[in-house]
Amino acid sequence: MHPNRKKLQDEMAKWQDDFEKRLTDCIGKRKLRSKNVISIDDLSKEEMDLIFDCTKLFKEFIVKPDRKMGLLKGTSQVNFFFEDSTRTRSSFELAGKHLGIDTINISKGGSSMDKKGETLNDTARTLDKMHADVIILRHSKAGTPQMIADQIKAAVISGGDGWHEHPTQALLDLYTILDKKGKISGNKVVIVGDIKHSRVAGSLIRALNKYDIEPRIAGPPTLIPFGLEKVFKCKVFYSLEEAIKGVDVIYALRIQLERAAGAEIPTVREYSKTYCINPARLAMAKPDAIVMHPGPINREVDLRTEVMDGPQSAVEDQVENGFACRLALLYLLLGGDRR
Amino acid sequence: MHPNRKKLQDEMAKWQDDFEKRLTDCIGKRKLRSKNVISIDDLSKEEMDLIFDCTKLFKEFIVKPDRKMGLLKGTSQVNFFFEDSTRTRSSFELAGKHLGIDTINISKGGSSMDKKGETLNDTARTLDKMHADVIILRHSKAGTPQMIADQIKAAVISGGDGWHEHPTQALLDLYTILDKKGKISGNKVVIVGDIKHSRVAGSLIRALNKYDIEPRIAGPPTLIPFGLEKVFKCKVFYSLEEAIKGVDVIYALRIQLERAAGAEIPTVREYSKTYCINPARLAMAKPDAIVMHPGPINREVDLRTEVMDGPQSAVEDQVENGFACRLALLYLLLGGDRR
Amino acid sequence: MHPNRKKLQDEMAKWQDDFEKRLTDCIGKRKLRSKNVISIDDLSKEEMDLIFDCTKLFKEFIVKPDRKMGLLKGTSQVNFFFEDSTRTRSSFELAGKHLGIDTINISKGGSSMDKKGETLNDTARTLDKMHADVIILRHSKAGTPQMIADQIKAAVISGGDGWHEHPTQALLDLYTILDKKGKISGNKVVIVGDIKHSRVAGSLIRALNKYDIEPRIAGPPTLIPFGLEKVFKCKVFYSLEEAIKGVDVIYALRIQLERAAGAEIPTVREYSKTYCINPARLAMAKPDAIVMHPGPINREVDLRTEVMDGPQSAVEDQVENGFACRLALLYLLLGGDRR
Repeated sequence: MHPNRKKLQDEMAKWQDDFEKRLTDCIGKRKLRSKNVISIDDLSKEEMDLIFDCTKLFKEFIVKPDRKMGLLKGTSQVNFFFEDSTRTRSSFELAGKHLGIDTINISKGGSSMDKKGETLNDTARTLDKMHADVIILRHSKAGTPQMIADQIKAAVISGGDGWHEHPTQALLDLYTILDKKGKISGNKVVIVGDIKHSRVAGSLIRALNKYDIEPRIAGPPTLIPFGLEKVFKCKVFYSLEEAIKGVDVIYALRIQLERAAGAEIPTVREYSKTYCINPARLAMAKPDAIVMHPGPINREVDLRTEVMDGPQSAVEDQVENGFACRLALLYLLLGGDRR
Repeated sequence: MHPNRKKLQDEMAKWQDDFEKRLTDCIGKRKLRSKNVISIDDLSKEEMDLIFDCTKLFKEFIVKPDRKMGLLKGTSQVNFFFEDSTRTRSSFELAGKHLGIDTINISKGGSSMDKKGETLNDTARTLDKMHADVIILRHSKAGTPQMIADQIKAAVISGGDGWHEHPTQALLDLYTILDKKGKISGNKVVIVGDIKHSRVAGSLIRALNKYDIEPRIAGPPTLIPFGLEKVFKCKVFYSLEEAIKGVDVIYALRIQLERAAGAEIPTVREYSKTYCINPARLAMAKPDAIVMHPGPINREVDLRTEVMDGPQSAVEDQVENGFACRLALLYLLLGGDRR
Repeated sequence: MHPNRKKLQDEMAKWQDDFEKRLTDCIGKRKLRSKNVISIDDLSKEEMDLIFDCTKLFKEFIVKPDRKMGLLKGTSQVNFFFEDSTRTRSSFELAGKHLGIDTINISKGGSSMDKKGETLNDTARTLDKMHADVIILRHSKAGTPQMIADQIKAAVISGGDGWHEHPTQALLDLYTILDKKGKISGNKVVIVGDIKHSRVAGSLIRALNKYDIEPRIAGPPTLIPFGLEKVFKCKVFYSLEEAIKGVDVIYALRIQLERAAGAEIPTVREYSKTYCINPARLAMAKPDAIVMHPGPINREVDLRTEVMDGPQSAVEDQVENGFACRLALLYLLLGGDRR
């Protein structure tokens, strides 16, 4: 064996053994009650804290030169994406592989559901009979992951459904706030942009509310659902300048460019003039405010490049935290006492 | 190491060791003569019995909490699907991974065959030069897998070709009959629906004939090839009620909805009125008759939901048996004395 | 454990241990300076020799019955193909898996780049934050892999960009010459066909020049860039008969059939009449000349079938060498002293 590889292997075996011990200690008697993570409402505040504690540990793992642990060896994961995705699917797939899970991908194009008219239910039951342990499901129709999860033994994690929820995004977002600010509760947060069509916002507001944060919501009236303040604890602003004042966290959503020139926003240019996070607007927030975005970013529309690439941007941290968070979640759903 | 994981690992190591021993004993001096499984006619009755004996063992494996065995570690499998597939591809891919095989997927869309005009032959020879051990090939043109297999060293398993054959489907179907009825020979079987365009029927009738079963074939005259009784041992009925009387096994095929309103069937509604397996028709079969279907199912057309989800349905057993059967087949083609 | 498997496992453990030792000795203090392989110009002649020395060793590995080594266990590889590919992607993916790398695929269709307007840069930075170790990138736009590589930590290997370069193809091509002829320098080489739109030719001419080979270039004037002889050391011929005389190596490029009947070539038939490598033309080269082609081949247009399948063809060797070469390259970029 190459001496470097031998050394690395010995170090990593020791480190991983210690890591598993620390992970077990960290979890203690806590566990996730639900077999699924489909809505943020599947999780209590205590369960979210558990996920964040584990995420913190997994952040040590992902920077190691050897990222293969057999913690979930012998289990299987199906990444079932009915909408295109790069970051969510890649993140889950790599996370699964690093934990020793056998992963397979099913995408809309390659499945028999389109052409052969099979119901999604029947497909999911099929996967269940192959004893898949966890299914990561992204679907354009709100409610689909829940309907599937109710019928099968396998754990289901939503990778986003319609305009409804994207719970792992909210988890990584809150973890990023925790990591950057040292705490979640007590931060002032503004969410900017297209709330109406955003599953990210759907999960994020729910999650912030659990930590007693009432986010400010800023965007054009056409992109904020009517009566939002009656459903969630939040405060709606049509002026970004007013909303951004003194906040700790600026969360810009992605504007879907294809909506421009439709009924909902006049032009992209118009939108960006009023709602793009630029240096001047950023300066109205607290001096140590962080800027977040779920990606993919429309540069110069959602965020100005100097903001995205500037020192207050937490955008790349979000990606890294998302990776760690998905490792943690897979472990909590399939590992430890669950095995 | 987490105490649960340690315990699981020790138990599984012991179980797997014993499993491999039982598998080796079960196989004994038997083997598959052909390097390929392309047609049911590649297999003698004795070889099919061998596959079923191994399938029975692998059914113990697939319900274990740790489903990773290194039996075929260091080999490689290419899933080469020129037609969309969910269950066949997923089943083969997961089976391969669970046995430690390195698997890769090639689909029509991502290959250079479409756009660059490469012949399938040349692509297969290319894979052969990467020393792939087994290629799972689904193609819309009958005869393609055989043509490929003749040119390369790698084992070829057909995942279905045109209207011709789908041998692993027939294997899992017969295993399901064996499992549910305790024997294959001696059962009365009716196959219902679109025989003409069904590769499933093509392989199934061949397989049943090997076990001296002369299946009854029921469907509209337009969907049953003329002269079928001269090619295979079977008996054609145009009345499902007549055909279903007293059978042990009802095998419904999938009607391709796009054929309706064409020359072959008048309307889906008409077809389902005459040939859908509903509770009344099921009651004409033996009281302990089982209902099978290769999937994906057109609910209310091929089968009524109460039949599919009822106690006599073996549809989900078929999926599970298919998974076990593909594990067995991969092992028989690549493992044991073949290594 | 099955006695054959036990025996194989013991033999392979011993062989692999010895292999790693020989590999380490072979490499010695040499290393690749660049973290990326995007252009042949990233590599000096000495570095190419290093790759070839390792390729030679890996050719022993790829014919072994157990092709799984943990040399790069715990690293991750992203195959990011924006253009369809069978052989390049399969070759890299299998190579990665055989070395124990966790590999994932991203294709144009399944990524968020198309529909969501994300920049490629942002996608690459995303993958970087998941700590991918190497990204294999094929893109239709020349220069894209370099632009990406400059922004991220991960190693980038180009799988071909536009009409620009395809460096691993040139590496396998030169290795094939070395393997068949016992040396690279000193061989007379003719490259035939569509030079203008060929990234293969772009990299191959650069690579040959490093070994002081001035290739002859043969093709219709419309398919040879004007002034080519001023950019590279080469000699242009419009008559294939003149160019092919006495050469050691005939390298036919793929003509893109869709170019025919355009401005650049009159018809495929016309092209093939003048430039297809047929037995008569092959006979004008040295008697032991070899025939190469990057694939996929247009039979009867680029090469006549009797030439492609004849004794002088090195086409299948190229595929096999490409596989070994990619194993070597991944190891040199990620293994040994780099770990």
